[in-house]
Amino acid sequence: MDERATSTREAASRFSLNQWTTKRWSVAEAVDGCVRHGVEAIGLWRQNVAEQGLDETVKLVADAGLRVSSLCRGGFLTSQDALDDNRRAIDEAAALNAACLVMVVGGLPGVAPGEPLGAFDRDLAGARERVAEALAVLAPYAGERGVRLALEPLHPMYCADRAVLSTLGQALDLAEPYPAEQVGVVVDTFHVWWDPQVFQQIARAGDRIASYQVCDFLHPLPADALLGRGVMGDGVIDFAPLTRAVTEAGYTGDVEVEIFNADVWAADPDEVLTRVKTRFGELIEA
Amino acid sequence: MDERATSTREAASRFSLNQWTTKRWSVAEAVDGCVRHGVEAIGLWRQNVAEQGLDETVKLVADAGLRVSSLCRGGFLTSQDALDDNRRAIDEAAALNAACLVMVVGGLPGVAPGEPLGAFDRDLAGARERVAEALAVLAPYAGERGVRLALEPLHPMYCADRAVLSTLGQALDLAEPYPAEQVGVVVDTFHVWWDPQVFQQIARAGDRIASYQVCDFLHPLPADALLGRGVMGDGVIDFAPLTRAVTEAGYTGDVEVEIFNADVWAADPDEVLTRVKTRFGELIEA
Repeated sequence: MDERATSTREAASRFSLNQWTTKRWSVAEAVDGCVRHGVEAIGLWRQNVAEQGLDETVKLVADAGLRVSSLCRGGFLTSQDALDDNRRAIDEAAALNAACLVMVVGGLPGVAPGEPLGAFDRDLAGARERVAEALAVLAPYAGERGVRLALEPLHPMYCADRAVLSTLGQALDLAEPYPAEQVGVVVDTFHVWWDPQVFQQIARAGDRIASYQVCDFLHPLPADALLGRGVMGDGVIDFAPLTRAVTEAGYTGDVEVEIFNADVWAADPDEVLTRVKTRFGELIEA
Repeated sequence: MDERATSTREAASRFSLNQWTTKRWSVAEAVDGCVRHGVEAIGLWRQNVAEQGLDETVKLVADAGLRVSSLCRGGFLTSQDALDDNRRAIDEAAALNAACLVMVVGGLPGVAPGEPLGAFDRDLAGARERVAEALAVLAPYAGERGVRLALEPLHPMYCADRAVLSTLGQALDLAEPYPAEQVGVVVDTFHVWWDPQVFQQIARAGDRIASYQVCDFLHPLPADALLGRGVMGDGVIDFAPLTRAVTEAGYTGDVEVEIFNADVWAADPDEVLTRVKTRFGELIEA
């Protein structure tokens, strides 16, 4: 086997399919798709796991020999009664032996994604404080169960409704009081590519990096900005320096491709998986 | 005159109408509107000034006794041949005795707002370097003419197509080599409200603050995210702490209301001006 072939084989081995990239597939279908396409890792979503059944999902991924690179997602810590749901999410991540539980921390209290403003609280600093308080309860709970929470900074355009956690630097400040194996961070290219401090903060993150997620940032953004995630190469992100920085920081885990995109979701999932694997080879593991 | 009346009068005196808030009005109409509504300052746009004629605009604002709080805008420094156009913008700002020339620095070379991607350059660090190089040429030119350049960090969702300058901290780093009276920064609530470092960076900015612009961040964002700027109170921003921070940093200049919004633009400009002045009194100068 020549060096090139070795490199290709290794490249494929770190590719993980976040199941919302092939959103039409159930957990069983996505697991089957991974096996057919030689994919070794999968990122699962809680609502899909619930539909399949947790025990059955555990069995499916074990039988297929897949790694669960993440469970998406806990969080929304700025809402009332978030703690119980997050404890359940941690228990599920433990059952699935997921490498991490992705935490989307939530926006301003009362602001709902896609919904007109009703009664809500404009106190951004207060919302961020509430996130820190909830983390202080959940981190030890996760630690006791061997689950790693992965704080995900979201693009600032989602600050009001999805995550008051907006930069990697802010995520690292929030994670700092806890052991790295208990609270890590997600580096998602879509959310962080614009940040003037991103390389500095990736280096600072080091072994706090719990997940590296890739997708492109489309231009122009579609009407629903949530769906502005594109297949790598279809948007404006320069992946090479980001991937290099994450690697140099010491991250050796799976690399999830997570794409929310109306056209991708409308396409045949097998064709999508083939396409994203090819682009992954060209742009992420090149 | 009781204290309340004094306070109201002083509040009104710092209100500036950015003319794109009443976009249907020509320069002459906007100047007339300011006079009728007791507004003492105006932010002008270059294309509107060109339509009215520069000399006539100079005369109109002088006759009306208006301050020109800003000229919008120079920049797009990442494009070819940006320097000549920016020298003209500086000359216009000097003629108008504008408090500053707002600089929207431009996005990735080749990426045009609202247009599909064609040939372009993904090198974000390179684009940022190009901005710094252009500023090194333009800052002394502006200084010689008594014009203050005001670097405007734009919300990160515009990084690809409008401004690779994404945070106040980054703007201050860029401004640092130059005297504060030559290169300042814009604090625009829409662009910076989400930034976890915003209060720290406003304090750091001190006398670099060349312009304070206010408008709200709407939720959900409209299909064209550029038009997500709302009348203060219609969106998610908590204005009081931001205004307090800008004041504590020492800024005593005019406060521009700049709203890009399809509904606002469709409404009667006199009604809009009345509404934004009221909200300004309630939320900015309260």
